[in-house]
Amino acid sequence: MSLRELTEHAGEWLRGAGPHNEVVISSRIRLARNLAGYSFVNRATPRMQQEVLDRCRETITKQDMGDEVLWVELKNCPEVDRQLLVERHLISRNHAVVDKVPRAVAIGAQETFSIMVNEEDQLRIQVLRSGMQLGSAFDQVNRIDDALESKLDFAFSQQWGYLTACPTNVGTGIRVSVMLHLPALQLTGEIDKVRRAARDMHLAVRGLFGEGSEALGDLFQISNQTTLGRGEEEILADFERTIVPQIIAYETQARQALIKQRSSQLDDKIWRAWGLLTHARTMSTEEVLQLLSHLRLGVNLGRIDTVDIPTINDLFLSTQPAHLQKLTGSEMDQAARREARAKLIRRKLNRS
Amino acid sequence: MSLRELTEHAGEWLRGAGPHNEVVISSRIRLARNLAGYSFVNRATPRMQQEVLDRCRETITKQDMGDEVLWVELKNCPEVDRQLLVERHLISRNHAVVDKVPRAVAIGAQETFSIMVNEEDQLRIQVLRSGMQLGSAFDQVNRIDDALESKLDFAFSQQWGYLTACPTNVGTGIRVSVMLHLPALQLTGEIDKVRRAARDMHLAVRGLFGEGSEALGDLFQISNQTTLGRGEEEILADFERTIVPQIIAYETQARQALIKQRSSQLDDKIWRAWGLLTHARTMSTEEVLQLLSHLRLGVNLGRIDTVDIPTINDLFLSTQPAHLQKLTGSEMDQAARREARAKLIRRKLNRS
Repeated sequence: MSLRELTEHAGEWLRGAGPHNEVVISSRIRLARNLAGYSFVNRATPRMQQEVLDRCRETITKQDMGDEVLWVELKNCPEVDRQLLVERHLISRNHAVVDKVPRAVAIGAQETFSIMVNEEDQLRIQVLRSGMQLGSAFDQVNRIDDALESKLDFAFSQQWGYLTACPTNVGTGIRVSVMLHLPALQLTGEIDKVRRAARDMHLAVRGLFGEGSEALGDLFQISNQTTLGRGEEEILADFERTIVPQIIAYETQARQALIKQRSSQLDDKIWRAWGLLTHARTMSTEEVLQLLSHLRLGVNLGRIDTVDIPTINDLFLSTQPAHLQKLTGSEMDQAARREARAKLIRRKLNRS
Repeated sequence: MSLRELTEHAGEWLRGAGPHNEVVISSRIRLARNLAGYSFVNRATPRMQQEVLDRCRETITKQDMGDEVLWVELKNCPEVDRQLLVERHLISRNHAVVDKVPRAVAIGAQETFSIMVNEEDQLRIQVLRSGMQLGSAFDQVNRIDDALESKLDFAFSQQWGYLTACPTNVGTGIRVSVMLHLPALQLTGEIDKVRRAARDMHLAVRGLFGEGSEALGDLFQISNQTTLGRGEEEILADFERTIVPQIIAYETQARQALIKQRSSQLDDKIWRAWGLLTHARTMSTEEVLQLLSHLRLGVNLGRIDTVDIPTINDLFLSTQPAHLQKLTGSEMDQAARREARAKLIRRKLNRS
């Protein structure tokens, strides 16, 4: 398996399947782990960092991770490939920065999991699933965690739990998050209420590319903030039984309200998105994400049938800068990318 | 002939024919006249105003004006009809306001001329022609003026010339104007230079509906400001030999520059306009005018062939509020008009 093959499909998190996929794009669980006897990444000597990397590679590539594993050392990666991994949510933006730290990522062939090595923590194990599948994501991340722990000695304190570079991750080291598509709450302006409610519940609300990124394409990533003093099951239950169902209900109500009270404006948004996507000659990523968001809403509400969800998901990823350059096979400046992007969209939409 | 028949075609000023019609939408010459022995409209008694109206009707409807004449007394007109006349540039916005002054308009069946009675002056004779046709417009307005003067005694001073209610019109009482489509100067931002140059030449630059209106749809009306102390022929020659050819040259250069240096952005504007016009579900007049402007530019530059200029001209007028209500046969609030407008556009563009 190579990185190149990755660009040929939309990846698990954009497969557009799974329960409640009309609102829940994907579920993600991430564990933070460090090896006992080594300093945290930002305190470790280069030699120590390399030793950690080597031990992790040894374990990850030899143990059964439940899927074929692609091991990628990032310093050997051209920038466009590192960016590609960010766009596919397989590594964080920080992990894509080349500095003196030897960084790597192990990727499952189905892209349901990735393990970042020498990110903020020595190991960041994440499982990604389409739709609302936190339960199976949790099972999968535990299996990977167990497989690793059978060979690696994780830094663990009886008092604090798993030790992590940042105190917010100490304890279970778990971060549970869901990527939600909330176009109706955005259109009706009610999204602010959801943001406030989330803050009150100590949840983080982030954009498409995690920390510090904007809510492009009406996509919101909701995740737990604290891990200390709460069990994994408890955090998970909160998401599965309360948080996610509630937000789904709000969004669904807002969608029904749009249909009942503002159907003409709703259809206008949807059809303008279609008209622009099929006719524009130059387009920014931001605009594409916004238009695809309205199109997705339109398809999910049965108000447009000129396109289907898999095509929208495909475009969602293939129009991102690195994917676009991989697909067209050439490095481009922004203006050229915007033209190539518009062309790609026209081609893909007129065929469907 | 009735007002209803008017809505069935685009009218002379939007026929889209005539010399230089890629830039010059229409040519217009207007004469201001008042009857000797009567106070100006705003100083006259109701009885005097009515007497002027009666004398004008008598003359206009009986003399040969060169075309069949429709006589319309505005107080008998429903608001939608008065608005219709404004949209067709047959009366001014002021003339459409119902107050105690008895107002009327005489309209030539081909809509090449209209004579407003009891506007600011007792008689406002205007001739409208498609494209750059100031010369023939001047001949026509003179023929009408002569026909009227053979029966009516106009207020005239040997020293000042024709006397008018506002001093800016005293003298020849002539206003020469051209409606220009300047989308490239607008897109390149050079329009401000043209505005400044026009001001320096004592020309007025106005929008689509004359005084105080915005330059909707990249349409600019350029007209002379002063009439005193300058001969009609001199004013006309300025427009024909200097002013209009110069602006046409600027606009043409700007269009060529767009093609050479920014063709992708140019095509983007044009195709986005097409995409939105053929897909939106609700649209304001302002947006339609802007999009039609880009479409017109695209057709004139041969960069889009999904539509022709007559269709664009038709839409230009038929999407105006009063025309829209006439065509759909029902009074509508703004939201309903915006939906009906978008529907009308989709229907007309998908047929062409």
